[in-house]
Amino acid sequence: MADLNSLNTALSLKLQHQLYDEALGLIQHLNYADQARLIQQFSFPQQIELLSRMEHQGLVFEFYPFHLQKELIEYFPLNLQIDVLEDMHSDDATDLYKSLPQTEQELLYPQLDSSTQQHLRTLAGYAEESAGAIMSSDYVSLAPELTMQQAIDALRLQPHDRETLYLIYITNNAQQLIGVISLRQILQAPLDATIHQVMTQELVVGNVHEDQESIAKKLSEYDFMALPIIDEHGTLVGIVTYDDAMDVVQAETTEDFLKASAVQVEPGMSLKTAPILRLYQKRVFWLVILVFGSLLSGLGIAYYEDVIATHIVLVFFLPLLVGSGGNAGSQSATLMVRALAIGDVTAKDWFKLMGRESLVALCLGGTMALAVSILGYFRGDALVALVLALSMLGIVLLGCLIGMSLPFILNKLKLDPASASAPLVTSICDATGVVVYLMIASQILDF
Amino acid sequence: MADLNSLNTALSLKLQHQLYDEALGLIQHLNYADQARLIQQFSFPQQIELLSRMEHQGLVFEFYPFHLQKELIEYFPLNLQIDVLEDMHSDDATDLYKSLPQTEQELLYPQLDSSTQQHLRTLAGYAEESAGAIMSSDYVSLAPELTMQQAIDALRLQPHDRETLYLIYITNNAQQLIGVISLRQILQAPLDATIHQVMTQELVVGNVHEDQESIAKKLSEYDFMALPIIDEHGTLVGIVTYDDAMDVVQAETTEDFLKASAVQVEPGMSLKTAPILRLYQKRVFWLVILVFGSLLSGLGIAYYEDVIATHIVLVFFLPLLVGSGGNAGSQSATLMVRALAIGDVTAKDWFKLMGRESLVALCLGGTMALAVSILGYFRGDALVALVLALSMLGIVLLGCLIGMSLPFILNKLKLDPASASAPLVTSICDATGVVVYLMIASQILDF
Repeated sequence: MADLNSLNTALSLKLQHQLYDEALGLIQHLNYADQARLIQQFSFPQQIELLSRMEHQGLVFEFYPFHLQKELIEYFPLNLQIDVLEDMHSDDATDLYKSLPQTEQELLYPQLDSSTQQHLRTLAGYAEESAGAIMSSDYVSLAPELTMQQAIDALRLQPHDRETLYLIYITNNAQQLIGVISLRQILQAPLDATIHQVMTQELVVGNVHEDQESIAKKLSEYDFMALPIIDEHGTLVGIVTYDDAMDVVQAETTEDFLKASAVQVEPGMSLKTAPILRLYQKRVFWLVILVFGSLLSGLGIAYYEDVIATHIVLVFFLPLLVGSGGNAGSQSATLMVRALAIGDVTAKDWFKLMGRESLVALCLGGTMALAVSILGYFRGDALVALVLALSMLGIVLLGCLIGMSLPFILNKLKLDPASASAPLVTSICDATGVVVYLMIASQILDF
Repeated sequence: MADLNSLNTALSLKLQHQLYDEALGLIQHLNYADQARLIQQFSFPQQIELLSRMEHQGLVFEFYPFHLQKELIEYFPLNLQIDVLEDMHSDDATDLYKSLPQTEQELLYPQLDSSTQQHLRTLAGYAEESAGAIMSSDYVSLAPELTMQQAIDALRLQPHDRETLYLIYITNNAQQLIGVISLRQILQAPLDATIHQVMTQELVVGNVHEDQESIAKKLSEYDFMALPIIDEHGTLVGIVTYDDAMDVVQAETTEDFLKASAVQVEPGMSLKTAPILRLYQKRVFWLVILVFGSLLSGLGIAYYEDVIATHIVLVFFLPLLVGSGGNAGSQSATLMVRALAIGDVTAKDWFKLMGRESLVALCLGGTMALAVSILGYFRGDALVALVLALSMLGIVLLGCLIGMSLPFILNKLKLDPASASAPLVTSICDATGVVVYLMIASQILDF
């Protein structure tokens, strides 16, 4: 890896003296990712000077984080906006273009070259989470009649912005996808064989309206470098590459992760730069909802107020018992959410898993019951110990079953299982726990 | 995609009549991933019959889930064990070999061909989480003097098990990595240019002892297909490909995800098949630890027993107040854990984020305080409303600051920030919340 720090110093010296071409000379041997990382360190006007002078400013700009791309492009002069959008890969260009205000889009569009216009027209129309929204139109497609030698010659002439030369898609006259051939196959077949003879006709494809997560799953299951995307007529409309799939996986995981703590999610939001009020909005909804869960616990307590008033020792153990149910429940929920997400379990496994979870819960509850009853014996008496042991067993068992079922139920209701967040499970388990505990206590102690 | 269901039916018919070769004929046009998926449906003996007859049984077997690979290989006859290990890519072969009992390893090793022996010797020695443990030795390397034409000819002759022909690594006589060239560059350069003239010399590399997560991060930052791995002498020892990096990312995320709910993690454990006792072990540790957290809450309550006994209405609001602090705290913790994991924030941002988090917490706490004081006014009186509002504000503020700081502190202590699980944060916030609430209550109500 290049020594970016020393380059950084040299670069800022050149920039101080406005020697932009010399500055570019210092970094032109770097890959686009490092170039992007280096020039991001400087002021907006300096970045604009550098980008304007680059041959492939779009390919460099792609490596900027998206929130920076959005911010910076607004400061670009019109001709740089045009150059960047034309040079970027079609999928990234579309995302960026869509982020611009409507008026600016209308100003820009007529000035772009016709191929960029066409990409934008096609790609900008697809739904947010669909394959269409992440696919690129920069693929290579060839006709099946070509020989290997002709294919190689054709590949030599492909423009630099093709996402990959390594998977070549074969279409018929109606632009329908009929095969795929890898550059490896081309290279290792006899030079006079035709593509049609060599290509793979068993295709794994994605549909343009298919969910991005499902596309990413296919790519990772088959270890493909790219997946061709077709429309309802079988026409090849784009490809999704493995690096876009990795981004999707990361975004989806962050989403699940945050949902697991009852935070609403906004893709690409940075904790360091997001407005305070936006962060507030993302969190307040669930906090308020969860208040109602806690109110249920409160109601349970109110109902058994007499039991508590006569046996005030019970309050001491309340957080412990109720908390353990919530903790065990959120463990179960998280295990289940993740197993559903990575495809380890599916909805039809619910019944089998219910049995297994019950066994695990009995072991967990048994251990905890033993521990808490010893505590109860020393702080109270044998009767209190009995109440605690029975309550703990019941609460942990119920907690686990609630925790494991909630993601399944959400899944059944076509909601995201990841919404079965730890706080949600905890507050449901808390209310259940209060009732179980105080009911058992009132039965045994007031006997 | 092939219609796997109808193939499945046809296949099972052939297998019933033990027509293994005809069965293979049905699936030989499929890719390895689909072949693996199909034959997994059948009994172990049938799978073994089919795998034994395949040309590339190792490449098919790679697409089995790892826990199934481990289980099934024990039933293989020795010659199939050998064929599979020799045919698999070196990284996967090493993982599988290492999973065998020591005695079986010793029995197998002398019978493997020398190249497989060498891979196993080299790769099996690297630490669990290091680049060495996931890298493959099946890369293509060429000498810098070759011309493009000679390079193409050399690529034509590469064996089928090379992970990729698309990135070719250039080494000097001492096997040190001096450059990388893509097949795309080879194809688009003049046929008589030498590799040395065209290759990229600005290298992005991984070290063989480097953490897998850091390797995966580099691959995704640079959008590379593979990353060359060198040792301390600069010698090229392997490559890590993007699909392995995707697996690492998925495994690491699952780990963080489970830790977030206080579950200990075992890589690749399946909820459907893992032994009950193993699942119990993974969960009981934290549940018991968390009991001590809850005990603190209990102690807080015991300390203020008199206040509670005289103002029993306080108990009604206890779960609500305490729960809200825990919920807000686990939101903060999760946001922070994830932001640290994806590199959005680093340790040095702590102070700045502290300020931002305080503002968010004040907004959240203010909203909740307003809501709970209305409830308190109707169930109690103005004084109770005041107690509730002040407590809520204090509890949410403290909860958020604890939640955001804990991952940083763990990070500072060189522990995994993901251990700042929702249950852990909740139980710390609970105890804090009990004390804040009852202290404020005793001050105001007993005035």
